[in-house]
Amino acid sequence: MPQDQDQEQDPDRDPGRDDRDPFGWIDEEAAARRRAGLVRTLRPRPAASPLLDLASNDYLGLARHPAVTAAAADAARLWGAGATGSRLVTGSTGLHAELEAELADFCGFEAALVLSSGYAANLAAVTALTARGTLIVSDAANHASLIDGCRLSRAVTAVVPHADPGAAAKVLDGHEGRAVVLTDAVFSVDGDAAPLDRLAAVCRERGAALIVDDAHGLGVLGEGGRGAPYAAGLAGSPDTAVTVTLSKSLGSQGGAVLGPARVIEHLVNTARAFIFDTGLAPAAAGGALAALRLLRREPERAARARAVAASLHERLTAAGLASVRPDAAVVSVRAPSPEAALRWAADCRAGGLAVGCFRPPSVPDGVSRLRLTARADLTDDQIERAVAVIVAAAPAG
Amino acid sequence: MPQDQDQEQDPDRDPGRDDRDPFGWIDEEAAARRRAGLVRTLRPRPAASPLLDLASNDYLGLARHPAVTAAAADAARLWGAGATGSRLVTGSTGLHAELEAELADFCGFEAALVLSSGYAANLAAVTALTARGTLIVSDAANHASLIDGCRLSRAVTAVVPHADPGAAAKVLDGHEGRAVVLTDAVFSVDGDAAPLDRLAAVCRERGAALIVDDAHGLGVLGEGGRGAPYAAGLAGSPDTAVTVTLSKSLGSQGGAVLGPARVIEHLVNTARAFIFDTGLAPAAAGGALAALRLLRREPERAARARAVAASLHERLTAAGLASVRPDAAVVSVRAPSPEAALRWAADCRAGGLAVGCFRPPSVPDGVSRLRLTARADLTDDQIERAVAVIVAAAPAG
Repeated sequence: MPQDQDQEQDPDRDPGRDDRDPFGWIDEEAAARRRAGLVRTLRPRPAASPLLDLASNDYLGLARHPAVTAAAADAARLWGAGATGSRLVTGSTGLHAELEAELADFCGFEAALVLSSGYAANLAAVTALTARGTLIVSDAANHASLIDGCRLSRAVTAVVPHADPGAAAKVLDGHEGRAVVLTDAVFSVDGDAAPLDRLAAVCRERGAALIVDDAHGLGVLGEGGRGAPYAAGLAGSPDTAVTVTLSKSLGSQGGAVLGPARVIEHLVNTARAFIFDTGLAPAAAGGALAALRLLRREPERAARARAVAASLHERLTAAGLASVRPDAAVVSVRAPSPEAALRWAADCRAGGLAVGCFRPPSVPDGVSRLRLTARADLTDDQIERAVAVIVAAAPAG
Repeated sequence: MPQDQDQEQDPDRDPGRDDRDPFGWIDEEAAARRRAGLVRTLRPRPAASPLLDLASNDYLGLARHPAVTAAAADAARLWGAGATGSRLVTGSTGLHAELEAELADFCGFEAALVLSSGYAANLAAVTALTARGTLIVSDAANHASLIDGCRLSRAVTAVVPHADPGAAAKVLDGHEGRAVVLTDAVFSVDGDAAPLDRLAAVCRERGAALIVDDAHGLGVLGEGGRGAPYAAGLAGSPDTAVTVTLSKSLGSQGGAVLGPARVIEHLVNTARAFIFDTGLAPAAAGGALAALRLLRREPERAARARAVAASLHERLTAAGLASVRPDAAVVSVRAPSPEAALRWAADCRAGGLAVGCFRPPSVPDGVSRLRLTARADLTDDQIERAVAVIVAAAPAG
């Protein structure tokens, strides 16, 4: 049966209110988080960090590339610090149009629409391409922004087991109306790839549309980094929409939806997360465009990111750690508990290494992990140093 | 009775699917839009537009101020083109922290949290500050991003008549559990202000929290542009959270939530629209911070924006047009139909003037309007020229 997808803790909260302290319940929740060892705090980094970065999503090392930052700076000076309005009013510049055209061409789709974030792109695609009565078939490990898109939509969501086209087929066969299959191309927690070709076949045989979030595939997978849908032969597919981010491989900020021109026109006309948002800042559009052009000139960056990931995985596995075989540039290493993961990450930090630490509720299966980014610009020496620090700091057992 | 807030057209769509064309329904909807005269298209503007801008949300004329664009450019070069990750991983920089501290201080709140857009700030505030069982009392004219926040939350939403504290009180009196009153400070369509002081009293007497979206008040209302909550004596209120954008008066991109420190910590720990999004790009944070500092040095910009709005309204009213008395920097002028509004805006454009044109479904009451922005940097000559063009292009009747 279709059911509401929910990866969030939803304690049975007391609905009573404290008349003298409407936010009093916040203290109780904070205390519960402290007891569970799940407090998150912001740790602002300096401009010149002494840490080796294996934590960011800057897969190609382009966020600080001089050509990319110069283009961002030039765009701010030429176009202004902000887009000044919704893309439908004053927020569309020639720079946005240029980025959209080159992005669509690179990934092999007819058209593209740039939004202020990948999160917004996912909300826009999922809500605008479904209606009341549509069935969304959603992979159990999908990213939070896709899940929020499902929640915000009027559709009914059926969560299916992770990476299981057969399960998707079965749910589709039980539904008569419009249907959409929704999947990450590369899952952000474990770095594994979705079986896109088989999912696309399941959709095609059953008249369902396919929406693929390629946030972690663009710039890493496919010929020269054209992304996972391109690699799966889905470029230009009339039944497929793809979302990407400009904030990972392209080192900037923003998101985009790629697809047939009629899909993009439909989003322009109906996607609330697009219509009721200010356009992406010119500096972010300019930075992303420069990164895209750089990737076209230096397509070997994509292969290098994959090679770095494979190398990290092999070395960590050889050292006895529970590393998941990476399909893209994310390497996930399991930890015995949230506390152990936190301590492990802190010890890496003390050893000069920034690593990601994923704990509930950011992990769908409740298993805490270190999450390592295989940046294309890491040298072999840096990889060796990183592995040595991670292994030395690993929790016992 | 609480009911779902819905300002969107929701035609009774055929749930059947076309097995050979999963996106075929898009063409039918596009045809319906064409018949209704409601097609929206993107019109990219050049870097140097010949049009006089009365359409953007750049209320203080800071988006292209040299100090602001230089700060954005410097931030891109120093910190990178993107934040490289979630604010909880690598996406928090010292620049974000600086902006948050100065923004909170300026508006008179204990703490602030910067997000990638005002839309995201509203989703974050509304979803994280409510739970299953919470009652949200939402003004009928609230912005789409607040409505989407309500939809995404687990709370029950009661829509109350526009700007009616008595109606809010009545709904609150009928509910025992936690409750939040949700309002725009300045409503984006008509530019009228909410009765914040009376809403706050209603909340205080009944133990409800108040969430205020000050997107159009920051930089325009209150002493030196400190915003509508500041003007209403709500700065530092323990029961109030405020959302703002960095993309309107501050000429950049992004949004923020302001409030008690415990509210901000709660958002850091639980707001999915914050946690699962890449941090705001450094250029946008740097641009907004420079604009904020400029506003502190030149507080007269806020008063000038209000004076320009009053002047536009008086002149348009004197010419017999249905202009709504502005409480901030938005001047709304009613049009007889969507087609007439569109033609009116096009004729203004032909006369050298960019004006906003709001049509369904962006207007809660279905009435189409021209929407004019009273920028603080408009000269008296420019105001006169703008009024002459608008009046000459006005539809008959």
